[in-house]
Amino acid sequence: LRQRQAEAVYGPGKTPDQCRRIVAELLAEPAGPPVVLTRARADQVEAALAANPGGQVTASGELATVVWRPAPPRPGRVLVVTAGTADLPVADECLAVLSGLGFAPRRLVDCGVAGLHRLLADLDEVLEADCCVVVAGMEGALASVVGGLTPAPVVAVPTSVGYGSSFAGLTALLAMLSSCAAGVSVVGIDNGFGAACAVGRLLR
Amino acid sequence: LRQRQAEAVYGPGKTPDQCRRIVAELLAEPAGPPVVLTRARADQVEAALAANPGGQVTASGELATVVWRPAPPRPGRVLVVTAGTADLPVADECLAVLSGLGFAPRRLVDCGVAGLHRLLADLDEVLEADCCVVVAGMEGALASVVGGLTPAPVVAVPTSVGYGSSFAGLTALLAMLSSCAAGVSVVGIDNGFGAACAVGRLLR
Amino acid sequence: LRQRQAEAVYGPGKTPDQCRRIVAELLAEPAGPPVVLTRARADQVEAALAANPGGQVTASGELATVVWRPAPPRPGRVLVVTAGTADLPVADECLAVLSGLGFAPRRLVDCGVAGLHRLLADLDEVLEADCCVVVAGMEGALASVVGGLTPAPVVAVPTSVGYGSSFAGLTALLAMLSSCAAGVSVVGIDNGFGAACAVGRLLR
Amino acid sequence: LRQRQAEAVYGPGKTPDQCRRIVAELLAEPAGPPVVLTRARADQVEAALAANPGGQVTASGELATVVWRPAPPRPGRVLVVTAGTADLPVADECLAVLSGLGFAPRRLVDCGVAGLHRLLADLDEVLEADCCVVVAGMEGALASVVGGLTPAPVVAVPTSVGYGSSFAGLTALLAMLSSCAAGVSVVGIDNGFGAACAVGRLLR
Amino acid sequence: LRQRQAEAVYGPGKTPDQCRRIVAELLAEPAGPPVVLTRARADQVEAALAANPGGQVTASGELATVVWRPAPPRPGRVLVVTAGTADLPVADECLAVLSGLGFAPRRLVDCGVAGLHRLLADLDEVLEADCCVVVAGMEGALASVVGGLTPAPVVAVPTSVGYGSSFAGLTALLAMLSSCAAGVSVVGIDNGFGAACAVGRLLR
Amino acid sequence: LRQRQAEAVYGPGKTPDQCRRIVAELLAEPAGPPVVLTRARADQVEAALAANPGGQVTASGELATVVWRPAPPRPGRVLVVTAGTADLPVADECLAVLSGLGFAPRRLVDCGVAGLHRLLADLDEVLEADCCVVVAGMEGALASVVGGLTPAPVVAVPTSVGYGSSFAGLTALLAMLSSCAAGVSVVGIDNGFGAACAVGRLLR
Amino acid sequence: LRQRQAEAVYGPGKTPDQCRRIVAELLAEPAGPPVVLTRARADQVEAALAANPGGQVTASGELATVVWRPAPPRPGRVLVVTAGTADLPVADECLAVLSGLGFAPRRLVDCGVAGLHRLLADLDEVLEADCCVVVAGMEGALASVVGGLTPAPVVAVPTSVGYGSSFAGLTALLAMLSSCAAGVSVVGIDNGFGAACAVGRLLR
Amino acid sequence: LRQRQAEAVYGPGKTPDQCRRIVAELLAEPAGPPVVLTRARADQVEAALAANPGGQVTASGELATVVWRPAPPRPGRVLVVTAGTADLPVADECLAVLSGLGFAPRRLVDCGVAGLHRLLADLDEVLEADCCVVVAGMEGALASVVGGLTPAPVVAVPTSVGYGSSFAGLTALLAMLSSCAAGVSVVGIDNGFGAACAVGRLLR
Ligand SMILES: Nc1ncnc2c1ncn2[C@@H]1O[C@H](COP(=O)(O)O)[C@@H](O)[C@H]1O
Ligand SMILES: Nc1ncnc2c1ncn2[C@@H]1O[C@H](COP(=O)(O)O)[C@@H](O)[C@H]1O
Ligand SMILES: Nc1ncnc2c1ncn2[C@@H]1O[C@H](COP(=O)(O)O)[C@@H](O)[C@H]1O
Ligand SMILES: Nc1ncnc2c1ncn2[C@@H]1O[C@H](COP(=O)(O)O)[C@@H](O)[C@H]1O
Ligand SMILES: [Mg+2]
Ligand SMILES: [Mg+2]
Ligand SMILES: [Mg+2]
Ligand SMILES: [Mg+2]
Ligand SMILES: [Mg+2]
Ligand SMILES: [Mg+2]
Ligand SMILES: [Mg+2]
Ligand SMILES: [Mg+2]
Repeated sequence: LRQRQAEAVYGPGKTPDQCRRIVAELLAEPAGPPVVLTRARADQVEAALAANPGGQVTASGELATVVWRPAPPRPGRVLVVTAGTADLPVADECLAVLSGLGFAPRRLVDCGVAGLHRLLADLDEVLEADCCVVVAGMEGALASVVGGLTPAPVVAVPTSVGYGSSFAGLTALLAMLSSCAAGVSVVGIDNGFGAACAVGRLLR
Repeated sequence: LRQRQAEAVYGPGKTPDQCRRIVAELLAEPAGPPVVLTRARADQVEAALAANPGGQVTASGELATVVWRPAPPRPGRVLVVTAGTADLPVADECLAVLSGLGFAPRRLVDCGVAGLHRLLADLDEVLEADCCVVVAGMEGALASVVGGLTPAPVVAVPTSVGYGSSFAGLTALLAMLSSCAAGVSVVGIDNGFGAACAVGRLLR
Repeated sequence: LRQRQAEAVYGPGKTPDQCRRIVAELLAEPAGPPVVLTRARADQVEAALAANPGGQVTASGELATVVWRPAPPRPGRVLVVTAGTADLPVADECLAVLSGLGFAPRRLVDCGVAGLHRLLADLDEVLEADCCVVVAGMEGALASVVGGLTPAPVVAVPTSVGYGSSFAGLTALLAMLSSCAAGVSVVGIDNGFGAACAVGRLLR
Repeated sequence: LRQRQAEAVYGPGKTPDQCRRIVAELLAEPAGPPVVLTRARADQVEAALAANPGGQVTASGELATVVWRPAPPRPGRVLVVTAGTADLPVADECLAVLSGLGFAPRRLVDCGVAGLHRLLADLDEVLEADCCVVVAGMEGALASVVGGLTPAPVVAVPTSVGYGSSFAGLTALLAMLSSCAAGVSVVGIDNGFGAACAVGRLLR
Repeated sequence: LRQRQAEAVYGPGKTPDQCRRIVAELLAEPAGPPVVLTRARADQVEAALAANPGGQVTASGELATVVWRPAPPRPGRVLVVTAGTADLPVADECLAVLSGLGFAPRRLVDCGVAGLHRLLADLDEVLEADCCVVVAGMEGALASVVGGLTPAPVVAVPTSVGYGSSFAGLTALLAMLSSCAAGVSVVGIDNGFGAACAVGRLLR
Repeated sequence: LRQRQAEAVYGPGKTPDQCRRIVAELLAEPAGPPVVLTRARADQVEAALAANPGGQVTASGELATVVWRPAPPRPGRVLVVTAGTADLPVADECLAVLSGLGFAPRRLVDCGVAGLHRLLADLDEVLEADCCVVVAGMEGALASVVGGLTPAPVVAVPTSVGYGSSFAGLTALLAMLSSCAAGVSVVGIDNGFGAACAVGRLLR
Repeated sequence: LRQRQAEAVYGPGKTPDQCRRIVAELLAEPAGPPVVLTRARADQVEAALAANPGGQVTASGELATVVWRPAPPRPGRVLVVTAGTADLPVADECLAVLSGLGFAPRRLVDCGVAGLHRLLADLDEVLEADCCVVVAGMEGALASVVGGLTPAPVVAVPTSVGYGSSFAGLTALLAMLSSCAAGVSVVGIDNGFGAACAVGRLLR
Repeated sequence: LRQRQAEAVYGPGKTPDQCRRIVAELLAEPAGPPVVLTRARADQVEAALAANPGGQVTASGELATVVWRPAPPRPGRVLVVTAGTADLPVADECLAVLSGLGFAPRRLVDCGVAGLHRLLADLDEVLEADCCVVVAGMEGALASVVGGLTPAPVVAVPTSVGYGSSFAGLTALLAMLSSCAAGVSVVGIDNGFGAACAVGRLLR
C-alpha cells in the first residue's frame, strides 16, 4: 500500500546523530529507492556521510543536499529555469534530487522577466525540454512566461527570496497559482525537492 | 511564439453576445485547437450555441462547460477523484475539458478521507491511472492519501466548497501545497479547467 | 493650501440626487479643474447629466465615467496596456480620466504574458510612449515585462479580475509591488482613476 | 469559583529563578493538583529541580516538561498518534502531561497519511483507545483519517513543523478545523499541554 | 473500516431534489445511524419531508435542521451556553443534532461576558453539566470563562455573528483557540453540527 | 500647532549615542513635557543617564523605561489590570509612563478570565477607578469582563504574549476590538506607552 | 454586577417583530438607561415605533438609529470629525447615540487629510472640544492629524468605506492603531455606536 | 530588448566574494549604467571596494549603499521627506541611489503628521520640488498629506519601522495604497532603491 520514488530526510530540526541513524535505516532496506538528505547543515552532512559513505553532496546555498543510492539513468529532458541569483539554492536542491532520480537536468539561470531577452535567447532550450521547472521569487512571473512558450508540463516553485512585498514567497506562490498560462502547476515555497518529485512522477 | 492546447473563454463577466462573438472568432482560425466556454450561464450557452452550432454542453453545477472542435482521441488513462458531492461541479468542468482535449477520463466520487474504505475499495482504479486529478474542499486531505498510493502524477484542485474554517478554498489550497506526499502539484481554487490543461501537458 | 488636477465624485454609495448636487457644486466653482463622476450607475449618470449638461460619458463595464469641463489638450504620449478582456473596465476608467486631463491616450489590449508575441508585435508603441499604465489581474506579470522593456515611467494597476487564487486583486497587487523591474510604481486595486492622476502628476 | 486539573508554569520568558519560585509556591498549596513546568530550558529545569526535588523530567525536543506531584493513576486508554518525526516534541509534551494527570498513554508514531499502511497496520490500537490525540503538521490530514476510523473522541493538535506552505502550523490548524470527520475538535498550534488537559476533562 | 454517529446532508448548494434523494438513500440503509439534514431552506425541507416522512424539524434562524431516525435516549447532561441572541441559530443546530443523537440537552442564553452576573446566577447549571458547548461570536470570551468554572469538557463553537472587527467569526475562532482556560477544544466557525458530534464522541 | 503630553524616544534601532543625544535635545527645550525613553537596552539606558542624570528607571522585562522631568502630581485613580505574568513588561511600561505623567497608578495582577475569582475578589478596586487599563494577551477576554463591570473608561492593550494561536498579539487585538462590552477602546499591540497617553488625554 | 450606559438592540439579523419585542422589554425596566435600536431597516423601525412610541429616529445611510428614553442633558463638548461623504452614515450613528446619552455633539465634515486647509480652517472647533471622535475610511490618516492637534481624548472609528486597497476598513483600522499621535484609541470598523459609548465613559 | 537605469546588486544572501565578482562583471561592460551595491554589510563593502576602487559609500543604517560609475548630473529637483528617525536608513538608500542616477536630492526629516507644523514650516520646499519621495512607517499618513499639498508626482515608500500594529510595514503599505490624495503611487516596503528608480523614470 505504499511506494515512493525517494526516501527523504529533512534536515532542519534533527541532530547530526538522528540524520546519521535515519539515513542508515533507510539504506538498510534492500533494493529501496534513492535516499536523500535535504537542507542539511555541515555537521549533519558530516555525520551522515561518516556512517553512510558514498553519498553525493550538492551545495544548496548555506545548506546541502546529499543523495545515496541514486536511481539508474532515465530518459527525459528536464530544464530548470531560474529568475535571479537568489533563487539558485532552491534550484540546486531541485537539480540534486533530479539527478538522484536518474535524470540529467539542465539549467538556465538569470531569466527574470524584466530582462526577457535572456530567456528568448535560449528559447530552443525551453522548447526542447520534456518538462520545465521554474524557480522564481519576487513576483514569480517567469512561470507564466515559460508556460506560454512551451506546451510541455511546467512545475512552478515559488521562492522565499525577496524584499519589499514578497512576503517570504507568498507573493510568488499566489502569482504562480494565478498564472494566466493554463496548466502550470505549483508546489510549496522553496520546495525544490517536491518539484523534482513531481517531475519524477510525470516523466515515468 | 505561442501555442496552447485549447482556447478558453471564461464566462463570468461577459455578455451573451460577447461569448457568441469570441467563440466565433476562435473557431474561424482554421485548424485551431479546441474552443472551450467555461462557467457559462444558460443565456451565454444559448447565445454561443445558436451562432456556433455543434458545441458539446456539460452541466457543471449551475453553470456549464461547452466544447467545440474537440481534439482527436488520445491515449492516457486519467482518473478524477472527488471528496464530496459539493466538489462535483469543479470535477465536471475538469472532465468536460479533459474530454475536449481528447481524453476519456474516468471518475471516482465521494472518497473523502473520513471514509477511507471507499477509496481503498477502488484501489485498482487509482493504481491503473496514468494521472490522477484530486478535487477536494474542506481540508483537502484526499490529495495526500492519493499521492501516497500512486507513483503517477497527481494534480490537486482545491475547491471553495465548505464551511466552518474552509475559507472559500484557502484551507484546502494550503493543505494541498503542504501535502506530505512528495510530488503532488496544485492548481488554483476551483480551477478544474487548469487541472485538465496540466494533464494535457503531462500526457502529451 | 490645496490644489488638485481633477475633482472626482465616487459613485458607489451615493444617491442619484447626491451625485447631481455634488457635481453641480463643483462646476459652480469658476475656473476649477475637470469634474469627474466615476463608477456611476445609469440612474446616477442620468441624474447628474440632466442637471449638468455637457458631460462626456464613457462606459466602463457595467458602470460609467463622466467628465465635465475637460482640461485643454496637453502633450505626452500615454499608453494603457491591458492583459485580458476582463481588465477593460478598469482601463476604460483610466482612459476616460486621462482624456479629461487633456491627454490623448492610446491603448494596447490582450497582452497577457502567456502570449508574449502580442506585446512584442507592438513593441514600438511601448518604446515610443512617455508613460505606460499597465492594467492586469491574475498574476499581474505584465507590469514586470513592460517595465523591463521601457525606460519610461510605468504605473501599474492591479485588477480584481480573476479566479483560482487571485483573491480579488490581492495577488496582482502584491506581484506588482514585488516586480523585478525596478522603478515600477503601483496604485490600489482597480484604481484606474488613481493611475490617470499619477500620470497627470508626472507628465506636468 | 475555580478549579483546574493541573497548575502549569510556562517556561519561555521566565528566568530560572522565577521558575524555581513559582513552582515552589504552587507546591506549597497543600493537596493541590499536579504542578507542571513546560517548555523549559536546561537551566530552568535545573533551578526548578534543585529547589523542588522529585520532579519527573521528560525531554521534549530541545526543551523539557517537568511534573511534580503527579495525580494518582486513573483509567482510560489514551492513544497519541503522530504524523512525522518532527511532531515528536509536541507529542512528548502531551504524553508527559497525560502521565502527570494519571494516565498511562500509548503512542503510535510516523503515521503520516502519505503512508496509510502504517496506520492501518495498527488499526486495533486506534479502535481500542478511549480517546485519541492526533499530533500532525504539514497538511494535518491525519486527524481526518483517524476521526473516520474511530467513534471515540479525537483531539487534534496542529504543529508548527513544516516548510513549503505550512506557515508555522496555520495550514494544519485550518485543515484540522475543517476536517470532514465530524466531531474532531482542535486545540492551538503546538499545544500538547492543552490537548492533554482536554483529555483530562473528557475522561474524568 | 467506517462508522459514524450520524449521516449528515449539508443543505447549501444542493437542489431540493438532491436533498430528497440523498436522505432517502441514507434511510434505506437498515439499522443505520440518525440522518440529519442541516442548514436547509424551506423548499429543501419540504422536498425531503414529502418523500421521507417523520423527520423532526428545528428552525435554526432562517434555515432548519431536520432529523430522521433519532438515536434512542442516552444519558449525559449536556449544556449549550450562548453569548448573544445572534448566536441562537448555531446553538439551535447544535441542540437539534444533540437531540437526534439521543441527548436531552439544556440551554443557557444571553451569557455574554460583559454581563457576568447572568452566567454566575446559573452557576449550578454549569457545574452540574457533564459537558458544555459554548456558542459565542464577537470576541468569544465566554469559552474561557466557562472553561475556568467547570472541570468538565468544554467544546467551543465560534460564530460568524458580529461586526466591527469580528471578521465573520475569525476573531472568535482565534480567541477560543487561545483560551487561557486549559483544555478547551474548538470546532469550526458556526459548526453547531460538529460540536454536537464532538459531544457524541466524548459522552459515549 | 502642536502639543504633546510627553516627548518619547523609542529605543529599538537607535545607538546608545543617538538615545543620549535625542534625550538631551528634548530636555534642552525649557519647560517642556516629561521626556521618556522606552524599550531601552542596558547600554542605551546607561548612555542616556550618563549624559542626562536624574532619569527614573523602571525595568520592563528585559528592557527598561526611563522618565526625566516627570509632570507634577495630578488627580485621577488609574488601575492597570493584567491577565498573566507574561503581560507584566507591557504593564510596567504603562505604569512607568503613567507615573511620568503625574499619576499614581495602582495595579492588579494575574486576573486572567479563566480564574474570575481573583478579579471578583478585588471588585472594589475596579469600581473605584476613574479609568482602567487592561493588559492581556492570549484571547484578551479580560477587557470585556472589566468593561462589563465598570462604567469608567477602559483602555485595552493587547500583548504579544502567548503561543498556540495568539499570533503575536493579533488574536488579543481583534478580540479586544470586538469586545461585547460597549465603549472599550484599544491601542496597538504591546503599546503600554500609548495606553498611558490615552489615559493622560482622558483624565486631563 | 452589571451596568451599562445604554441598552442597544442591533438590528441586522432580527425580524421586525423581534425588534419590537426586545425594545419593549428593555423599556419595561423602570428607570433604565436609554434604549437604542441600531442599523435598523425601515420595517424594523416601523414595527419598533408602532409598539413603542416616542423613539427619536436618525437616518444613518440606508439604515436608521432610534433612541427611546434619552438620558438627561449632560455637559461635555464632543466633536465628531469625518473625512469624506461616505463616512457620514457611521458618523450619524455615533451622533444619534451621543444625543441619546445626553450630549449635544457637533460635527465637522469633509476633512480628509488630502485637503488639510478645511481642517485648519476649523482649528478652533477642534481645540475647544473636550473629546474628538474621528470617523474615517481609506487610509484613516485623519486620526493622526487630529490627535496631533488636540491634547484631548481622540476616539478613532475606521470605516469600511473605500476601494483600491482599503479592504473593507482593515487598512483604516490598522493605520489608526499605528497612529504616530500617541494616545489615540480605536474601536471596531464602522462602530459608531461603540465610539459614542467610549465617549460616554470618558466624559462621565 | 533591455535597458535599465542602473545595475543593482542586492547584498543580502551574497558572500563578500560574490559581491566583489558581480560588481566587477558589471563594471567590465563598457559604457554601462551606474552600478549599485545595496544593503551591504561592512565585509561586503570592503571586498567589493578592494577589487573595484572608486565606489561612493553611503551608510544606510547598519548597512551601506555603494555606487560606482555614477551618471552625469541631470536636472530635476527631488525632495525626500521622512516621517521619523527610524525611516532614515530607507531614505538614505534612496538618496544614495538618486545621487548615483545624477540627481542632487534634498531631504526634509521628522515630518510625521502628528506634528504638521514641521511640514508646513517647509512648505516652500515641498512646493518647489519636481518630485517628492515620501518615506514613512507606522500609519504612513505623510504620503496623503504631501500628496494633497503638491501637484507634482509623489512616490511613497512604506517602511517596516514600527510597533504596535504596523506589522512590519504592511499597515503603511496599505495606507499609502489607499491614500485619499489621488495619484500617489507606491513601491514595496523599505524599497528606497525602487523609489529612486521610479524617480529616474519620471524625470527623464
Ligand atoms: N474555468 C476556468 N478556470 C480557470 N481558468 C479559465 C477558465 N476558463 C478560462 N480560463 C482562463 O481564462 C482565460 C480566458 O479569459 P478571458 O479572455 O477573459 O475569457 C484563458 O486564457 C484561460 O487560461
Ligand atoms: N506548554 C504549554 N502549552 C500551552 N499552554 C501552556 C503550556 N504551559 C502552560 N500553559 C498555560 O499557560 C499558563 C501559565 O502561564 P504562566 O502563568 O505565564 O506560567 C497556564 O495557565 C497554562 O494554561
Ligand atoms: N450599531 C452598533 N454597532 C456596534 N455595536 C452595537 C451596535 N448596536 C448594538 N451593538 C452592540 O450589540 C449588542 C446588542 O446585540 P443584540 O443583543 O444582538 O441586539 C449590544 O450590547 C451592543 O453592545
Ligand atoms: N535595495 C534594494 N531594494 C530593492 N530592490 C533591489 C535592491 N537592490 C537591488 N534590488 C533589485 O534586485 C535585483 C538584484 O538582485 P540580485 O541579482 O540578487 O543582486 C536588481 O535587479 C534590483 O532590481
Ligand atoms: Mg522573479
Ligand atoms: Mg475533502
Ligand atoms: Mg494578467
Ligand atoms: Mg502531517
Ligand atoms: Mg461573545
Ligand atoms: Mg489573557
Ligand atoms: Mg480618510
Ligand atoms: Mg509615519
